[in-house]
Amino acid sequence: MKDIAVWGFAWVPPFAQGLVRDLRVRWALEEAGLHYESKWIGADERTSESYRRKHPFGVVPVIESNGETLIESGAIIYAIAEQHEVLMPRDLRTETLAWMFAALNTVEPPIWNLFVIDQLQSDQAWTKLRRPGAVDEVNARLAALSAWLEGREYLLGRFTAADIMMATVLRFLRHTNLVTAFLPLDNYLKRCEARPGFQAAVRNQAEGYARNTPVAA
Amino acid sequence: MKDIAVWGFAWVPPFAQGLVRDLRVRWALEEAGLHYESKWIGADERTSESYRRKHPFGVVPVIESNGETLIESGAIIYAIAEQHEVLMPRDLRTETLAWMFAALNTVEPPIWNLFVIDQLQSDQAWTKLRRPGAVDEVNARLAALSAWLEGREYLLGRFTAADIMMATVLRFLRHTNLVTAFLPLDNYLKRCEARPGFQAAVRNQAEGYARNTPVAA
Repeated sequence: MKDIAVWGFAWVPPFAQGLVRDLRVRWALEEAGLHYESKWIGADERTSESYRRKHPFGVVPVIESNGETLIESGAIIYAIAEQHEVLMPRDLRTETLAWMFAALNTVEPPIWNLFVIDQLQSDQAWTKLRRPGAVDEVNARLAALSAWLEGREYLLGRFTAADIMMATVLRFLRHTNLVTAFLPLDNYLKRCEARPGFQAAVRNQAEGYARNTPVAA
Repeated sequence: MKDIAVWGFAWVPPFAQGLVRDLRVRWALEEAGLHYESKWIGADERTSESYRRKHPFGVVPVIESNGETLIESGAIIYAIAEQHEVLMPRDLRTETLAWMFAALNTVEPPIWNLFVIDQLQSDQAWTKLRRPGAVDEVNARLAALSAWLEGREYLLGRFTAADIMMATVLRFLRHTNLVTAFLPLDNYLKRCEARPGFQAAVRNQAEGYARNTPVAA
């Protein structure tokens, strides 16, 4: 991959900073030691014709490299990981992809649901009624994940692209104590977040938000 | 792949029949012309130690082949697709994976949310308050997907594994008129469901449910 550009949202409110999904791509690129340029899409441009040509759903991340465009954090990171053993050793390709999908399709749905309740729609009356059940659903997944992580430093023993997906999913709960209630999970997330690649990714994303902060914010 | 076994739930109520995610794996195997055995996990066995050793989250599908176990419909189907061009031509590998993730991580979340509201928790008071907004979120994704499908028979022109994921996601809306309101989407889903591989998969899953129907149901 050459001439890499990563698209993220130009600015998001503090509760969402460090959570937007282009962070995953930045983190993977940092782990792989690849240089990349940041591009930012404004809230009002997301539904524009020109951006829809990059991303049919008008969301982020998008990556551009050598004139080609690729969408979906999972697919982008898998494409990077195929070329960089630090993200995916040859003998763990199938397992890495399985845990990437587990993060995004089995663990993220109940967690995102709680994030919507607490952070995006907390002023809505239905959230109070829905929240207890939503927490139970999150805890069921966290308990299973915590059991899996006992005795493992990372999901597959050593660090892989699957940890990028899982750690960024768990971070949607940072406004709660749900992760910290499970010691193996808490240790795992801290281990992931301590990686220099993660920290550089957060820093790069935050620098964009700082430059693009709306005057009124 | 040899000696393939696919695990599904032994029985689910009619509203869920034809929607459980092992259908995706069956469909992929049928398209690839691979023979497989069906194994069924009862509701009370899902959290057992022995099943958790197969699937850490106690859900389906699980595939076993040559003594190896693999979880997550996305990863299982990608592993099959890597060996069968009918599911993924060599020159469309990256795009196929991108659209598989788009189906599961961009389109499925709002659709699954509405499925929970209408089919799993409709007796809960919060669902009435939440439903209008949830429908709007579904429609935003369907409109974008429908625009993409205009002039395309399948997501990538020709049929790929991504269509298995997307069609099975859209089927979670079969209790509504939301898909049929978009002509390109409606045609697309009907085109997918008309494939002999899809029909064989539904039949195989239904035969299991018929054999395993609880006496009280």
